[in-house]
Amino acid sequence: VNLALLGFGNVARAFARLLLRKQETLLNDYGLELRVTGIATHSHGIAIDSSGIDLEAALAADMLDALHTGDPVEDSKAFLAACPAQFVIETTWLDPRTGQPATDYVRRALQLGRHVVTANKGPVAFAYRELKSLAAQKDLAFFFESTVMDGGPVLSTLREGLPATDITRIRGVLNSTTNALLCDMEGGTTFAESLRRLQELGIAEADPSNDVDGWDSTVKIVVLANVGMNADLRPQDVDRTGIGQVTPDRVRAAQEAGKRLKLICEAWREDGEVKAKVAPVEVPREDPLSIVEGTSGVVTFHADTLPALTLIESDPTPDTTAYGLLADIINAARGRRWSMVRRRF
Amino acid sequence: VNLALLGFGNVARAFARLLLRKQETLLNDYGLELRVTGIATHSHGIAIDSSGIDLEAALAADMLDALHTGDPVEDSKAFLAACPAQFVIETTWLDPRTGQPATDYVRRALQLGRHVVTANKGPVAFAYRELKSLAAQKDLAFFFESTVMDGGPVLSTLREGLPATDITRIRGVLNSTTNALLCDMEGGTTFAESLRRLQELGIAEADPSNDVDGWDSTVKIVVLANVGMNADLRPQDVDRTGIGQVTPDRVRAAQEAGKRLKLICEAWREDGEVKAKVAPVEVPREDPLSIVEGTSGVVTFHADTLPALTLIESDPTPDTTAYGLLADIINAARGRRWSMVRRRF
Repeated sequence: VNLALLGFGNVARAFARLLLRKQETLLNDYGLELRVTGIATHSHGIAIDSSGIDLEAALAADMLDALHTGDPVEDSKAFLAACPAQFVIETTWLDPRTGQPATDYVRRALQLGRHVVTANKGPVAFAYRELKSLAAQKDLAFFFESTVMDGGPVLSTLREGLPATDITRIRGVLNSTTNALLCDMEGGTTFAESLRRLQELGIAEADPSNDVDGWDSTVKIVVLANVGMNADLRPQDVDRTGIGQVTPDRVRAAQEAGKRLKLICEAWREDGEVKAKVAPVEVPREDPLSIVEGTSGVVTFHADTLPALTLIESDPTPDTTAYGLLADIINAARGRRWSMVRRRF
Repeated sequence: VNLALLGFGNVARAFARLLLRKQETLLNDYGLELRVTGIATHSHGIAIDSSGIDLEAALAADMLDALHTGDPVEDSKAFLAACPAQFVIETTWLDPRTGQPATDYVRRALQLGRHVVTANKGPVAFAYRELKSLAAQKDLAFFFESTVMDGGPVLSTLREGLPATDITRIRGVLNSTTNALLCDMEGGTTFAESLRRLQELGIAEADPSNDVDGWDSTVKIVVLANVGMNADLRPQDVDRTGIGQVTPDRVRAAQEAGKRLKLICEAWREDGEVKAKVAPVEVPREDPLSIVEGTSGVVTFHADTLPALTLIESDPTPDTTAYGLLADIINAARGRRWSMVRRRF
């Protein structure tokens, strides 16, 4: 099975290392030999080699062009068509307000008949129905486990663990930067001090507005609502409040009331529609959403068949996100699809 | 798709009602028309009808024999061979010390070429490798989601959500009666009072030793270790301590230390072997295992690819267990199997 990597940043590099480490398991347990036949980057060149790129060499190289064989390839779009692969693994940069250019890349890859595995929330938040139906028409997988809770099996649980279930409500703490900030503030650290600490650790970005203003949380609850509740939301439909206005007093008052302030993402059915909201909420200690520390994440599904199922992903690393990509590839290779009817007797 | 129900107690009856309720969803979303062609009970008769048994009538009847068509059927073994069905749904009574007669029924059903979905822990705790390999040889599903955490998607998460993962440790609170007892004792109720209350609610059994002595927890950790860690444990291999010796003082001391006493099931790798233990443990409040109240359950998987993934199933009902059976049937029907290699490119 040949893979084309679109994007070669931290997540894709962790994925390449995981691939090297899991080679034997994949072959022995799944009969899978995964080979990377191309890597395209924005500013570190493009390489295609139909006999397989040496991943150790690619990880060590600054520019990838030395690993390229054959005709020159102009850009990422040309790369998608030129790289001989059954899978496109999409991990490019994303504008969270538009979902581009990731959405265009995913659409193009599916049109070209490639299975798509992406770590980008944009395509699902902005074009899920279209891309899902395009994939279904061509019996292709379009998977994105790494978009929510860092590769923990949340989307595969919706797909495989909860068939024929009506999910009535989804609640979660899905953004690590804001959760780590609020936990720090509980310990008496100021917002500014905590932000500096998280930026030094590489958890918060230089421009933290995407996290702090609730955009990342918003996009994630849209992904979960669209997939789990058959909604057709866009990020702009979500009632969004970030944690920028949260004061130390509010954090302390919650603690004194035996609660914890968390940035809660929520989606629910109301009058036949799915609504969604992101806002800081005082959560009681007995609610599993209150328990997550630092960069951990949590989501609870309420459904007609199960009163409440909660998944907690503790202390994720970039390797966890990379694992989500690998799990998706294995599941696509063994025939899993979003479309539900697979076999009739 | 025809189903033979072996056992028609609370779980199977809840399953029959769920089947009636989900008929339309199954047909529309999964192209599945599930029909019960036979029901066998220990003391309420046996019915086979190849054109489909009226489930409303079966639920209302005391003896099933009036619903039977064709030649008389002597017992459950004869029923397995005589009932025209692709699936056997096994929910009979189980001796937790031997796993019988459920294990024999499951083996027989697989030998006859039926997919097997069971709510019985015995076959998995006592004969998992044999039954798994028998099912694989015949490309049959052998699923048992309802055996752990009441039908919450724990086993499907191992199968579908965590491929190519080495699970290094499993920890959980998996028995509802003992957890409800310990929670009651935290509130000052005595063991005896709490037990009486739980027996009145139908949560604890008349003879509570299977729960109180840790047998149920033991069998469940064996199921998870055998499936998730590729172990080959039997219940007698587990170092087992129940909660019979737990004093009110010990419960109170844990609370005063900011902890909660929980009956913890644990399996881990040690010197290349999988070991398992069941015992009451003082759990700190920041550990997700501490959070479960009453009959709720929780399990944490530690793995090479994910530091820790926790699943919490809150406030389960008999309908939750019934849902586990339905989820297994849908997954079997759409081609899911334990054997990992499903398709090659």
